[in-house]
Amino acid sequence: MLTATELLYEGKAKKVYATTDPRVVIVDFKDDATAFNGEKKGQIAGKGEVNAAITTRLMTYLEAHGIPTHFREQLDARRLVVSHLQMVPLEVVVRNRVAGSLEKRLGLAEGTVLDEPVIELYYKNDALGDPLLNDDHIRVLQAASPAVVTQLKQQARDINRLLQNFFEERGLILVDFKLEFGIQEHALVLGDEISPDTCRLWDKETLQKMDKDRFRRDLGGVEDAYQEVLKRVMS
Amino acid sequence: MLTATELLYEGKAKKVYATTDPRVVIVDFKDDATAFNGEKKGQIAGKGEVNAAITTRLMTYLEAHGIPTHFREQLDARRLVVSHLQMVPLEVVVRNRVAGSLEKRLGLAEGTVLDEPVIELYYKNDALGDPLLNDDHIRVLQAASPAVVTQLKQQARDINRLLQNFFEERGLILVDFKLEFGIQEHALVLGDEISPDTCRLWDKETLQKMDKDRFRRDLGGVEDAYQEVLKRVMS
Ligand SMILES: Nc1ncnc2c1ncn2[C@@H]1O[C@H](COP(=O)(O)OP(=O)(O)O)[C@@H](O)[C@H]1O
Ligand SMILES: Nc1ncnc2c1ncn2[C@@H]1O[C@H](COP(=O)(O)OP(=O)(O)O)[C@@H](O)[C@H]1O
Ligand SMILES: [Mg+2]
Ligand SMILES: [Mg+2]
Repeated sequence: MLTATELLYEGKAKKVYATTDPRVVIVDFKDDATAFNGEKKGQIAGKGEVNAAITTRLMTYLEAHGIPTHFREQLDARRLVVSHLQMVPLEVVVRNRVAGSLEKRLGLAEGTVLDEPVIELYYKNDALGDPLLNDDHIRVLQAASPAVVTQLKQQARDINRLLQNFFEERGLILVDFKLEFGIQEHALVLGDEISPDTCRLWDKETLQKMDKDRFRRDLGGVEDAYQEVLKRVMS
Repeated sequence: MLTATELLYEGKAKKVYATTDPRVVIVDFKDDATAFNGEKKGQIAGKGEVNAAITTRLMTYLEAHGIPTHFREQLDARRLVVSHLQMVPLEVVVRNRVAGSLEKRLGLAEGTVLDEPVIELYYKNDALGDPLLNDDHIRVLQAASPAVVTQLKQQARDINRLLQNFFEERGLILVDFKLEFGIQEHALVLGDEISPDTCRLWDKETLQKMDKDRFRRDLGGVEDAYQEVLKRVMS
């Protein structure tokens, strides 16, 4: 059986362990929650299990629709076995409606529907506060080659279309979400997680927020929202 | 003779007046200086005259090298007659070395030479703090068509090459600068000003700052630096 050896990296929401197979790592989902670049810290009870389960379901769905992902199998309630990727240090944000930082950047009202999705690339660098980058910045940082940037954006658009449909059928509006990609044997592969930590999800009828914004903004009912998303995603 | 009629717009550094000819406006350069999105305010004695003269010299030089500009003639020490443009609400920043906000964004040292120029487009909107935009944001804001964005960037690159040479011959390094463009009869035309307010210029030998950073950072010798740039630009 595959077993975790050393802890390779402990992030804000997950721990990544090496295994006896160098091509494989184990990701352990924590209940820890952070916001505003780590300034706000807390816990969301059960989040680790919820996010591991939702990520498993969504990555399996994406794989079935032709998107290469790092997902291999769920090891137990909080742990996933995934391909070990060389991560691209970019956060790829896809937006279908205005929310969060886009509200402030463009001066548009929360909820404004975007005719076409907006894609943003942020430098994954806590010390710098994850700044927005344009293609020239990415070239200077050598964060990704121009070919990889083009491919990232295309993949992100394809994933958006698939996830929008998936959530729509379950009564949820996919407002925006963040992806991370990595390279394995020269191929671009979707990594990290897809969960209420990394997606903004609104109930289709009530427009209630069902995601980490409940934690960020102290809206209450955080755990219930995560459980409700899990229930719908599993249905 | 052409005379100013009503004041159309008073900005932070200039006043724009209508004239008896609707295709023409008069720009009056003020001594007022602001920084950090208007938070810091002051005056730089003689700046209006210096910037009017430098803008005249540089726009004339660019026109002679095939760049369409709004410049028509210098009316007096502080006033220029220019074509009335429909301004594109973007600040086009071209960078040859790392300085200012790019230092913070990329975590690179001030003065780092960029192999190729970096172009950044900011939304010209004081209320929003002139945020950085990517091409998708520009599409949502309808700030400029994709064709105009492409043209803007190309023009900015061409202008950069010309200005780099011009300053180099006068012992100055063009670290970065900001341009504003406008439309007149469906053509993209360079507007606004080119001056030590809108360029970072370093002495080639001493790397001394010869621009508005002396004001921003309270380095002293602000007026002298502006006069020295004027002297070199006129030589
Ligand atoms: N398949 C993978 N291989 C290697 N690293 C991964 C993989 N998937 C995600 N990661 C990385 O593991 C870390 C996950 O932990 P997380 O707590 O989300 O970190 P962070 O606080 O840096 O966002 C991130 O740095 C993420 O990029
Ligand atoms: N040729 C032109 N026609 C019309 N408006 C112009 C032209 N050139 C510059 N402008 C605009 O005039 C104003 C110049 O004043 P300035 O004090 O620099 O303003 P701001 O504080 O908005 O930067 C700016 O809004 C600029 O975009
Ligand atoms: Mg993370
Ligand atoms: Mg201005």
